[in-house]
Amino acid sequence: MKIYDWPTGPYPARVRIALAEKNLLSSVEFVPINLWKGEHKTPGFLAKNYSGTLPVLELDNGDNGICLAECTAITVYLDALVGEPTLTGRTPLEKGMIQMMTKRAEIEMLDAISVYFHHATPGLGPDVEVYQNREWGLRQRDKALRGMHYFDGVLKKQPFIAGEAFSMADIAVIGGFIFAKAVELPIPQECEALLAWFARMQERPSVRAQLSIVPPKH
Amino acid sequence: MKIYDWPTGPYPARVRIALAEKNLLSSVEFVPINLWKGEHKTPGFLAKNYSGTLPVLELDNGDNGICLAECTAITVYLDALVGEPTLTGRTPLEKGMIQMMTKRAEIEMLDAISVYFHHATPGLGPDVEVYQNREWGLRQRDKALRGMHYFDGVLKKQPFIAGEAFSMADIAVIGGFIFAKAVELPIPQECEALLAWFARMQERPSVRAQLSIVPPKH
Repeated sequence: MKIYDWPTGPYPARVRIALAEKNLLSSVEFVPINLWKGEHKTPGFLAKNYSGTLPVLELDNGDNGICLAECTAITVYLDALVGEPTLTGRTPLEKGMIQMMTKRAEIEMLDAISVYFHHATPGLGPDVEVYQNREWGLRQRDKALRGMHYFDGVLKKQPFIAGEAFSMADIAVIGGFIFAKAVELPIPQECEALLAWFARMQERPSVRAQLSIVPPKH
Repeated sequence: MKIYDWPTGPYPARVRIALAEKNLLSSVEFVPINLWKGEHKTPGFLAKNYSGTLPVLELDNGDNGICLAECTAITVYLDALVGEPTLTGRTPLEKGMIQMMTKRAEIEMLDAISVYFHHATPGLGPDVEVYQNREWGLRQRDKALRGMHYFDGVLKKQPFIAGEAFSMADIAVIGGFIFAKAVELPIPQECEALLAWFARMQERPSVRAQLSIVPPKH
């Protein structure tokens, strides 16, 4: 399998952490796509992923080189391929909760920070950011800050984002932390449960390894 | 189980079609939430779904009245609860493809039309639409039109959105058609494969029943 990504990107980080949790890193060849040069918006890459986002998992020739995009889809695929440890749940309720909280982490935090980055900061630079809507970007930043308080409330009641066990939903919020740091958007200090959870997350080898990657030159 | 929804809403339609496909409609009590009065933005409803969107599935008391939001999460839950017919796939690759194409249907068509509706049309009216960004809404409309051409291309090569079988991804694009009709955004006539697919979809009792619901007074 190949993974097209940018090693330190917040979305690529989600799949890299999932691969590490499932002990699959050595089964994958990583192919760098230079976001800062807009390589994810070229016709060749758009043929792999119409939405022009990273990461993309390309299957081996036996599966006709099929490409899977979207972090949740890739994680569900990997989780179905290798059962343990599960990242997407075992029971119907676990599966539903993990899907919901992963999506919520995207809508309310990670994707919102991404829109802020691409629309209300220089983003990937003028050659890549061909359209910006600053007002929308700033609204999304404020939404992300509200989202952090929401997740803080969740973590006051339970140890992990989707309940009693580590899951894909925790990884999605970790992606949010990575993006927040990249855009210099501090997690509010009063979000004590959220900050304590992130400290616990960094005790996991998968997360620690991802956070220690040195960004490639671009 | 209770479903909080608005019967003719594009997102509620996704879960209603999934319930019909799985022969679960009679297991569910529907509770109307009046979108036009902003009932989905009240504190009581936000306690059930922080994101303030419909539909929401509320489990019975045995499961502590847990609420599941997000169409994909609800469908994954229902699919795990009742195995056949599957809407989310059997093999790892089917599961991954269906998740990807469902998300792509949201990003590139359904959610884009939703943003157009809420930001570049009167939407649910001035009391509910407290902030609008018209320029962003119009960009999303154009994105949705491009998305229709993309799905047309997909359906030139395969009978269903995620491959060889009907799935949650088809239902997501049907949601896009329902929203497109509601906002009077015609599917381009040149998208022949997409239009032929939608004609086929309407042969399914689940889809036909949904499209024949008369909107409640609001």
